[in-house]
Amino acid sequence: MKTESRLVQWICWLIVITSFFLTGFIIGWFARPTSTETSHDAGSRRHLREFLDEMRPENIRDHLRKFTRLPHLAGTEQNLQLAEQIKGEWLAYGLDSVEMVPYDVLLSYPNISQPNYISIVDDLGNEMFNTSLSEPVPEGYENVSDIVPPYSAFSAQGQPVVKNAMLHGASGIIMFSDPADYCAPGVQPYPDGWNLPGGGAQRGNVLNLNGAGDPLTPGYPAKEYTYRYNLEEGVGLPKIPVHPIGYHDAIQLLKNMGGDVPPNNWKGALNVSYRIGPGFTDGFSTQKVRMNIHTNNQVTRIYNVIGRLRGAVEPDRYVILGGHRDAWVFGGIDPVTGAAVVHESVRSAGKLLRKGWRPRRSIVFASWDAEEFGLLGSTEWAEENAKVLQERAVAYINADSAIEGMYTLRIDCTPSLHTLVYDITKQVSSPEEGEEGLSLYESWHKRDNWTDDRDAPRISKLGSGSDFEAYFIRLGIAAGRARYTKNRKTERYSSYPVYHSVYETFELVERFYDPSFRKLRAVAQVRGGLIFLLADSQLLPLDASQYAGSLTKYAHTIAQLGQKHPDALVKYGVSFDSLFSAVENFTVAARDFHERLTTLDRTDPIQIRMVNDQLMYLERAFVDPLGLPGRPFYRHVIFAPSSHNKYAGESFPGIYDALFDIERTANPKQAWDEVRRQISIAAFTVQAAAMTLTPPA
Amino acid sequence: MKTESRLVQWICWLIVITSFFLTGFIIGWFARPTSTETSHDAGSRRHLREFLDEMRPENIRDHLRKFTRLPHLAGTEQNLQLAEQIKGEWLAYGLDSVEMVPYDVLLSYPNISQPNYISIVDDLGNEMFNTSLSEPVPEGYENVSDIVPPYSAFSAQGQPVVKNAMLHGASGIIMFSDPADYCAPGVQPYPDGWNLPGGGAQRGNVLNLNGAGDPLTPGYPAKEYTYRYNLEEGVGLPKIPVHPIGYHDAIQLLKNMGGDVPPNNWKGALNVSYRIGPGFTDGFSTQKVRMNIHTNNQVTRIYNVIGRLRGAVEPDRYVILGGHRDAWVFGGIDPVTGAAVVHESVRSAGKLLRKGWRPRRSIVFASWDAEEFGLLGSTEWAEENAKVLQERAVAYINADSAIEGMYTLRIDCTPSLHTLVYDITKQVSSPEEGEEGLSLYESWHKRDNWTDDRDAPRISKLGSGSDFEAYFIRLGIAAGRARYTKNRKTERYSSYPVYHSVYETFELVERFYDPSFRKLRAVAQVRGGLIFLLADSQLLPLDASQYAGSLTKYAHTIAQLGQKHPDALVKYGVSFDSLFSAVENFTVAARDFHERLTTLDRTDPIQIRMVNDQLMYLERAFVDPLGLPGRPFYRHVIFAPSSHNKYAGESFPGIYDALFDIERTANPKQAWDEVRRQISIAAFTVQAAAMTLTPPA
Repeated sequence: MKTESRLVQWICWLIVITSFFLTGFIIGWFARPTSTETSHDAGSRRHLREFLDEMRPENIRDHLRKFTRLPHLAGTEQNLQLAEQIKGEWLAYGLDSVEMVPYDVLLSYPNISQPNYISIVDDLGNEMFNTSLSEPVPEGYENVSDIVPPYSAFSAQGQPVVKNAMLHGASGIIMFSDPADYCAPGVQPYPDGWNLPGGGAQRGNVLNLNGAGDPLTPGYPAKEYTYRYNLEEGVGLPKIPVHPIGYHDAIQLLKNMGGDVPPNNWKGALNVSYRIGPGFTDGFSTQKVRMNIHTNNQVTRIYNVIGRLRGAVEPDRYVILGGHRDAWVFGGIDPVTGAAVVHESVRSAGKLLRKGWRPRRSIVFASWDAEEFGLLGSTEWAEENAKVLQERAVAYINADSAIEGMYTLRIDCTPSLHTLVYDITKQVSSPEEGEEGLSLYESWHKRDNWTDDRDAPRISKLGSGSDFEAYFIRLGIAAGRARYTKNRKTERYSSYPVYHSVYETFELVERFYDPSFRKLRAVAQVRGGLIFLLADSQLLPLDASQYAGSLTKYAHTIAQLGQKHPDALVKYGVSFDSLFSAVENFTVAARDFHERLTTLDRTDPIQIRMVNDQLMYLERAFVDPLGLPGRPFYRHVIFAPSSHNKYAGESFPGIYDALFDIERTANPKQAWDEVRRQISIAAFTVQAAAMTLTPPA
Repeated sequence: MKTESRLVQWICWLIVITSFFLTGFIIGWFARPTSTETSHDAGSRRHLREFLDEMRPENIRDHLRKFTRLPHLAGTEQNLQLAEQIKGEWLAYGLDSVEMVPYDVLLSYPNISQPNYISIVDDLGNEMFNTSLSEPVPEGYENVSDIVPPYSAFSAQGQPVVKNAMLHGASGIIMFSDPADYCAPGVQPYPDGWNLPGGGAQRGNVLNLNGAGDPLTPGYPAKEYTYRYNLEEGVGLPKIPVHPIGYHDAIQLLKNMGGDVPPNNWKGALNVSYRIGPGFTDGFSTQKVRMNIHTNNQVTRIYNVIGRLRGAVEPDRYVILGGHRDAWVFGGIDPVTGAAVVHESVRSAGKLLRKGWRPRRSIVFASWDAEEFGLLGSTEWAEENAKVLQERAVAYINADSAIEGMYTLRIDCTPSLHTLVYDITKQVSSPEEGEEGLSLYESWHKRDNWTDDRDAPRISKLGSGSDFEAYFIRLGIAAGRARYTKNRKTERYSSYPVYHSVYETFELVERFYDPSFRKLRAVAQVRGGLIFLLADSQLLPLDASQYAGSLTKYAHTIAQLGQKHPDALVKYGVSFDSLFSAVENFTVAARDFHERLTTLDRTDPIQIRMVNDQLMYLERAFVDPLGLPGRPFYRHVIFAPSSHNKYAGESFPGIYDALFDIERTANPKQAWDEVRRQISIAAFTVQAAAMTLTPPA
């Protein structure tokens, strides 16, 4: 009996103990989260704050100072040394890898033993007046060698003598920076102010590449094994000599040319902008003028610096922050204000890395070479990595000059980034004096609101003229850029006055543009914040509905342009209905997509990846492999650099170009057929993009 | 003391119980698998067995019988009704959705009131002899209306009278099926055997599309809103009349034409194959022959049927099984042996679905329209869905005619599918009598080994002439096809004798080609098994190393072709080294990739997705958006339909075409430069593909 009772007791205890064990097991089983994703975003925001706060004005100042001591023209020893220096510092900051990526591209330099200049010649051919061979060097830089004199890269060689050159069929083009376009009223020339001195001139390239990259290897990376076209077959090389001069020389030239053009009309006749579009549409008549141009094209090795930070969860998703390193001379603004900002972003990211942080996705930092020679470094790298980038690139943020004025922020970006731009600028402080406590968003908002009824800061379309081009326009990767800018309502000069001259120095920025370096810090925080949130947010911060809104606006704009020809629309059966219908479908698809996101299971990694893929590939859906007419590397159907100004962006460029000057066409039927064809391509593309947003099966 | 001891005892018990609870909790916590993926593949194999076993010869017979009773030419009411029937049955079988997808494409039909024929005319223009207006209809089909007479679709209209037409500059082309090419020795003409009767003729289209799809909407889907080119601008439309005749009529024509061509030479002169490449390179001299051709081109609505089966885990990954439905007449072999096989696959998949199975990825079943008119249905759908397919399509398996001979299996596929093809054919039984217990692999292997030293059944390159073209060659989606074929060593006639004639009936298959329907079942199991494993395997069954092996072989083949001109290689500096080097890099990258797979964490869904994305996008990496020279829709750098025979596939087609006939070029420097350029493009593409296989960051 006693033994039995003991047994029963033991059995009871066993049952109790087992029950507790099982209860524990079951609770343990179900208590374990199947994913650690849910708490991700809060942690990410905290790290963002650290990342932004770590960026310091004094560091940006130091980077700018360090990178602007010597000229670093693409293809030169100095620029290679600068690349090595950047590589070393990025590695020291803590990036996982940094590599130098070389290409052999066509560059163009003046001939040192035969300088370029323009002369007025008399009837016997004697030179009566010659333009300067170089710009007066600013104080403190007198002993610097290797300052390349003002020239037009890729100019043809030659010594044409022109009596009555016509606008078209000119045998040479002389460009000068008209004070009316390149000087701000009431501002002293450098070094007393930030205006262009009369002896300054604007370097630049005169290629007409339309996104081809290296002129000799269009479509393919300029590696050692790559087939190169002959110079005669190269893309976009001008056939005639081109040369830039300062306005002091321009006055002399004009005076000596007879002076029968009344002074008031000079500007109209001579206002030759440096902004070369697809054709040399600007030029001016010369009389007895001889150009002496001996610039040489030569295949030259350039180096991109590519730094990588591996993503913790999705290493196969890339967010790219890229800007160029090469400068015409010192690059005080262009590009080193941009390069300094990238440098500070790398430093700040490295600081977080050391604390154990790692972004969800990979970040790629790029220091491009040879941007000034036609976006060559960035385009060649895009060509070499096109297949990987198409599959894996989330976004590209450009980091060229971070400042071009002192007024407020300027953002150019793809519509799907609008929401993120507003988000990040609300987390950055205003750099303006007297605006302590205001966010950059608020500071920007009060200075530059949308011109329509939206109550938010104005954001522009992306044009071109910088390294995002191949990524956005050719490959369809969401892209954006940020910089501090001038007041576009009151400051009408192009770019900034000393653009591409020897007067772009560290002192220019320190004395005039951003003495506190707080504006540059704000730009660094915007650019850095964009890549941070793109790389680290669980759901990609891309907004398809903003794209829908922009498409609606662009469709109305282009339809209005067409409706300037109501009779032709009827006669040739041209209608924008299919485009509006596609945009409406896109709008509904985008709205439904974002609605579905609100109920998404955030703990399911495949669900997350699927919607992120839809967001990532949305921009890709706007790319047409057939390209725009005559511009095979401009493949984005919604955006292209304007055919008439490469810095400006055009929406629905295929339709726009088909409508351009249509009233002057010799064959209206054919011209309007092309309009119809382009509307059909645009409608298809928008419709196809809408399809990518619908549920996947 | 007693109370104290009680307390101690209770505390002890509490500790014991808590310990057990905690032990249970901890074991429970860690015992729980973080993913249910690991046991997936075993279950998938069991389902595969069920899926294959469910396919029955008698069902395939019934589908074939049902779908071949009436003619179902593209664009006709009968073919629309057949589409509706298929849609209804697929829905009944259990697919998640089935939709009809219409396009308005250019088709071409004979004029009923003005039949096409060829005549011998005398000097006064009187018709001395006319060719038949139709084929003698086979027994049992005498009362069938709407049998389209033999014609060449898209022929130009006209009534040219030709005395001494030249091979080039001909004013018309008459084609006939030479018995030497279209009859098997010792076989009776249908209905006593499977040879072509003398009154039979081969329909076909005479377009030169090079992958453009609808001739009036190249590059874009032929929807209502789409811009259409004029007929004169349409892609690939011949400028002269073309017409096919039977060999009985051909003999009469030749006899009446003077007969001074000795009979032994007739074949050479008259051997005009139906296989039209990019130019009408075949033709024959006619004398006093008048063609009377009144065929009309007209934009006509066609319908694809698209059925979908949603994937359980990755619904945004698509495996496509597609084949055409339209037939020239009854489609006894072409395409209904293929359509019947697709039908049986859908039925079998539906059976599994009802048991609760669902594949990991989505499966798309397609019944294409208007394949016979230039692959139009499949190409238009590829155009409409290009963006989604580029992002999400894993593979495309084609399902045209499932049988063209009685000898053994024939597989044409991309190299990355080789391993999967061997795997699946080992799981299918041989359909041959007396081979009970042998696998299809073994049966196939003993009949058709590789011609080199590999010990495995031979697999061919994909050419074209069927609906996989847009998916593989334009979009870069891994693709393959399977069918039963003739003995290529002994049976040298083209295709099968009654190809595209009225004699392609149900009875042809039941009496001669596959009375037991076991061959067709085997093909169904191969096609179905491929899509099953592509859709349901956790890791995609694509083999990058097989691709490496094929690339190596192709590189040697093309280099050997170049080395036929050793002097020119030296003179013009042509080297294949960069190509070999890229292939070597690809080989190493592929080997390393598959090695990494062996240690992959199969419980991490993102890790799995990343490597699967690499495998899926591998084929995409071979696509060049710039296309091949003059063939913008042939974008695959490794494979293209031969420029000289659209049914055959060419490897490194850009180099091949550049080398073609190079000894006869007028400008050798230019021609060899083009060879160099093409080698450089091939080397770049292979290198870029290798980069996609390296670890992603």
